[in-house]
Amino acid sequence: MEGLVLCSANYTPLTPLSFLERAAFVYRKRVALIHGNTSFSWEGLHGRCVKFASALSQLGVSPGDIVAAVAPNVPALYELHFSVPMAGAVLSALNPRLDAATLAQLLQQLEAKVIFVYFDFIEIVLHALNILEEKDKPYLVVIINESKVKELPVLSAPANILDYYTLLEMGQSNFKIVYPKNEFDPISVSFTSGSTGKPKGVVYSHRAAYLNAIADIFRYEMQKMPVFLWTVDMFRCNGWCLPWTVAALGGTNICLGEINGKEILDAIYLHNVTHFCGAPMILTKISDAIATNQPLLPHQVNVTVAGVLPPLEILTKLEELGFIINHAYGMSEALGPMISMSRTYQDEFSKLNEDVNVKIREGIHSIMMEEVDVKDPESMKSVPADGKTTGEIMFRGNAMMLGYLKDTSKTEEAFEGGWYRTKDLGIKFPDGYIKLKDRIVDIIKSGGKIISTLEIEAVLIRHPMVLEAAVVALPDDVVGETPCAFVKLKEGCFMTEEEIIKFCKDWLQDYMVPKAVIFGDLPLNSSGKIQKFILRDKAKELKRPLS
Amino acid sequence: MEGLVLCSANYTPLTPLSFLERAAFVYRKRVALIHGNTSFSWEGLHGRCVKFASALSQLGVSPGDIVAAVAPNVPALYELHFSVPMAGAVLSALNPRLDAATLAQLLQQLEAKVIFVYFDFIEIVLHALNILEEKDKPYLVVIINESKVKELPVLSAPANILDYYTLLEMGQSNFKIVYPKNEFDPISVSFTSGSTGKPKGVVYSHRAAYLNAIADIFRYEMQKMPVFLWTVDMFRCNGWCLPWTVAALGGTNICLGEINGKEILDAIYLHNVTHFCGAPMILTKISDAIATNQPLLPHQVNVTVAGVLPPLEILTKLEELGFIINHAYGMSEALGPMISMSRTYQDEFSKLNEDVNVKIREGIHSIMMEEVDVKDPESMKSVPADGKTTGEIMFRGNAMMLGYLKDTSKTEEAFEGGWYRTKDLGIKFPDGYIKLKDRIVDIIKSGGKIISTLEIEAVLIRHPMVLEAAVVALPDDVVGETPCAFVKLKEGCFMTEEEIIKFCKDWLQDYMVPKAVIFGDLPLNSSGKIQKFILRDKAKELKRPLS
Repeated sequence: MEGLVLCSANYTPLTPLSFLERAAFVYRKRVALIHGNTSFSWEGLHGRCVKFASALSQLGVSPGDIVAAVAPNVPALYELHFSVPMAGAVLSALNPRLDAATLAQLLQQLEAKVIFVYFDFIEIVLHALNILEEKDKPYLVVIINESKVKELPVLSAPANILDYYTLLEMGQSNFKIVYPKNEFDPISVSFTSGSTGKPKGVVYSHRAAYLNAIADIFRYEMQKMPVFLWTVDMFRCNGWCLPWTVAALGGTNICLGEINGKEILDAIYLHNVTHFCGAPMILTKISDAIATNQPLLPHQVNVTVAGVLPPLEILTKLEELGFIINHAYGMSEALGPMISMSRTYQDEFSKLNEDVNVKIREGIHSIMMEEVDVKDPESMKSVPADGKTTGEIMFRGNAMMLGYLKDTSKTEEAFEGGWYRTKDLGIKFPDGYIKLKDRIVDIIKSGGKIISTLEIEAVLIRHPMVLEAAVVALPDDVVGETPCAFVKLKEGCFMTEEEIIKFCKDWLQDYMVPKAVIFGDLPLNSSGKIQKFILRDKAKELKRPLS
Repeated sequence: MEGLVLCSANYTPLTPLSFLERAAFVYRKRVALIHGNTSFSWEGLHGRCVKFASALSQLGVSPGDIVAAVAPNVPALYELHFSVPMAGAVLSALNPRLDAATLAQLLQQLEAKVIFVYFDFIEIVLHALNILEEKDKPYLVVIINESKVKELPVLSAPANILDYYTLLEMGQSNFKIVYPKNEFDPISVSFTSGSTGKPKGVVYSHRAAYLNAIADIFRYEMQKMPVFLWTVDMFRCNGWCLPWTVAALGGTNICLGEINGKEILDAIYLHNVTHFCGAPMILTKISDAIATNQPLLPHQVNVTVAGVLPPLEILTKLEELGFIINHAYGMSEALGPMISMSRTYQDEFSKLNEDVNVKIREGIHSIMMEEVDVKDPESMKSVPADGKTTGEIMFRGNAMMLGYLKDTSKTEEAFEGGWYRTKDLGIKFPDGYIKLKDRIVDIIKSGGKIISTLEIEAVLIRHPMVLEAAVVALPDDVVGETPCAFVKLKEGCFMTEEEIIKFCKDWLQDYMVPKAVIFGDLPLNSSGKIQKFILRDKAKELKRPLS
C-alpha cells in the first residue's frame, strides 16, 4: 500500500516512562506518593527522577548498564523504577532478605555497575561486596538514608560511595531523558524466588512492562486516580508492574514503614486506599488485626492476592468489613499475575456450582495475555475443559519476559513449542476458568492417581491449631508415593499424628490422607516460600512402612 | 544482553482481533450486540465473523485486499470490523450519504475487491459502479438485506452479487483466522469528511487500532462490560475505534434503526446504556425530545461529543437529567478524538476560573498519545501556556494513521518535522489544557488581530431564533479581513441584519462583530459539516463597503 510512512509523528517505542511524563503534565500537583511525613506531587516526583537520571549519566551509567537496588518499599525504590530507565539503564531490584553469598552471586551475574542500598541493609551488602572479586564490584554504591544523616561507611576500593540526596543535588533538571531506541530493549531484571532452585534473572522489555502495566488496570479493576497501598514487594516482578500502572492513572502511592495488619488497616482509613496486593499472608495479618468494634471500611477496597487462599472464615471476615478479595495466579516470567478472578464475580457456571473447588479457582486470563491453556506437555494438545483432566498450564502473549539473563538454554526450554511452560499442573473448567493443582515437581503419584499437595494443605490449615503445613511425596513400595505432611502448630497447641490424620479423613478421600505427619518449623526461603525440596529429602530419610 | 529470545510465547503482533477472540472465550453467552429483535452473544458473534472471513477467503479475498462497505450502523457493519481483517483484508467503511460520483472516485482509489451494501443504498452504489470502468469494479457485491428477502438486483458483469446470509452459509466454522504478520499492517482505510476539500483515505494499522481501542476505555471512562449505544457513525474513523473497544471489555453494543432524540432516550432506559458518542447535534436532538415529566436517568450515562458544544442551557438540561457530558477533539488522522475533557471534572485551575472560555475547552491528551502541543508551525517552538498565544495544534504518538492512501506527499506534509500537523489553531492554558480556536484556513486576520470564527459562531447560536451559523472572512481594504456571518433561522422566525449585529455587540469585542449578515440555508457536505470554502467564495462576491 503506497503513501504510508513510519516516523516520530506516528510511532514511538512503547515504554512506561511515557506514563510518568504524562502524569507530570496532566496530574501536576496531585499527590503521587506518601511515606510517613514525606509526600511528592507528580510534577515533583518527575523532576526528581529526571535529576537522578542525569546524575547517573554523569557518573558514567550508560544505556544497557544494570543498576541494582537492595531496598524495601521506600520512595527511593519507586523512583528508581523511572530514573534508572530514564538514564537508559536496566533496574534490578533485589530481595533485601537474601543472604550475602546469594546476593554476591546475583550481583556477579548482573555485572551491576551501580548498587543502591537502603541503610538497614548496608551491612549485608558490604559483606556481599567483599565476597566479589574486584573486577565484579559495582563502581558506585548509593546509600538510601532515610534520616538524612550522612554517616557513610568506609568502603574498600574501587567503589565510590554516595548518599541518595547528594546524588539528587548532582542532577540537572534539564537532562534529556534517554528513551529506548527499540521497545524490546530491557527495562529490568527480576529474580525468581528460587522455590525450585537457584533464583533465575528474568528480563523484561519496555514493551512488555508498558502493556502489562496497562493490563494491571483491568486485572485489578482500577479506575482513574486510585490510591494504591504498597504491600506487594517492589523487588518482586517490579511490584507486579504496579509502579508504572499507578503513574499511568495519576494515582497516589502509599508506602508503608512496616507491613503488618494494623499498619495496613490504619493506612486504609487514613489515606482512603482503594487497592492493594500481595501474598495471601497479608489477609491473615489483617484478619488478626481487626478489632471487635472495627468500623466498616469507608468505601470498597480491592485486594488481590496470589497464592493459596487462607481459610474461608478469614475471607468472609474481611469481606464483611468491605474488602473485595481477588485471587490471582502468575509468576516472575509473566511480569506477575496474568490469571485472576474476583471472588464476588459470579458467572452463570459458578453460580450453579457450590463446590469450593470450583468457587476458589485461579480464574481466567487478563486482557493482553493472548492465550492461556492447559495442555499435555508432550503432545501439546489441549486437555478437555472438564474440570477433571490435568495438564500443564501454558500461555503466550506480549506481557512476557524476554528470557533468563545469560541462560539461553533455560529460555529456550521455557518457551519450547512457542508457549511459556509454567511447570504447574492445572485443570480447565467448562467456562474456561483454570484451577491450579500443583507444581509438577510437587505432585504425588499414588497407585495411578495424581494427588495435589495443595489440596491436602488447604485441608490441614483449616484445623484451628495448625499454623502452617506442607505436603510432599513419601516413597512407597506398593503405590509408588504417598502423602507426607509437615505441620507447624500455633503457639501453645499440641496435636498427635493420629489426630491430624483423623481430621484429614473427614475432608479427603482415603488415598489423599497423609500417611505420615511430622511436626516442627518449616524451611522457608528468603521470600517466605516453603522449600519443599528440603522436605522431600527429609521424607525420604524418614521413609517408613505403610500404616 | 544474552539469553533473550523473541518467539510466539512472548511476542504477538498487536491487533484488535485478539479482543474478539478473548471476548468469545471469557464472556461467551453474554450479549454482544442488540439490534431490534436481533441479538448475538460474544460466542455467537465470534462464530459468525469466523464464517464470514472464511467465505471471503473462499471467494478470493487475499491478505491486503480492500473490502468496502456502504452501510449505516447495522450489525453487519460491526461484524465487518472483525471479519474483514480476520481474512487478512482491509476494511473501508464509506459514508452512505456520499453522492454516486464521489463514491465511484473513492472506490477507484481504493481498488476495492468486494463491496458490502446495505439494501437502502443499493441504488446509489449501482449508480457509482456504473461510473467505474470494468477493470476498477469490485468483483463481488454483497447485499446486506435486513428483511432477508433475497430480491437481489441484476448487476452488469464482471461483478457477482450475493446476499449477506448466503455468504454466512458458505463459511466454514473451522476457518483459521489470518493474523497480521506485522502489527504495522493496515487494518482499515477511513475517509476524512472532506470539509476542506476532497476526502482523503486515511490508513490505520493493527497496532494503532489496538492501542487506540484501549485508550478509548480511559478517554470515555469506561469500565468492564459497558452498554454502548451506537450514535457515532461506524464509517467515521471506524466509529472512533469503539467496535474494538467494546469487544475488549465484553460490553454490549446497541445498534439503533434511526438516530433521533426519542430513540436514543428510549434505548437508554430500555437497555441501561452507559456510554454513547457522536457529533454535538445528538445533544440538541436529545434535548428536544426530553418530555416535561421525563424521569431521571436510572444511572449515570456518559456521552462524549466532538465539535462545537451546543448552548449552555442544553448542556445543563441534559446534566440535570443525569448525563455526564464530555467534550473531545480529534480527527480521522488520529483515529478519532485524542484530546478530551469531562465537563464535571474540575481541577484546581479551572475551579478558580469562571470564564466560559476556560470551562469549555477541548481538554488534555489521552493516555497513549505521546505528546500534544501548540507550536509555531515555522520555528516548531511551543507557544507559551498563557491561554492567549495562538499556534498550531500538533501531536505525535502511536494512535496515529500510517498515512494517506496513495499520497506520499500529503503524508509527508502532514508529518513534517516529526509531528502531525492538525492545521488547527489553538491556545494552551497554564494547566496544559488546550482550546481550539479555529481551522487555520478559517481564521480571520483583521488589523493585525486574529479572530476565531468559532467564537463568533458560539455567540450566534446562543440567540433563540438562530438554528445554524457560520462565519467566514470578508475581504476588507482597510483592515484586510472582517467577519461575515451566514445565518439560518429557525422555522417561522424573522430577524434583520441589524438585530444580529446588535446581539453580537452584547457579547463580543467590536473588532469581532460581523460586519455583514446573510440569511439562508448553509451548504453542508455529506457528513453534515458546513462547507466554509463555498461561503468564502460567496462572501467575496458580496464584498461590500465598510459599514
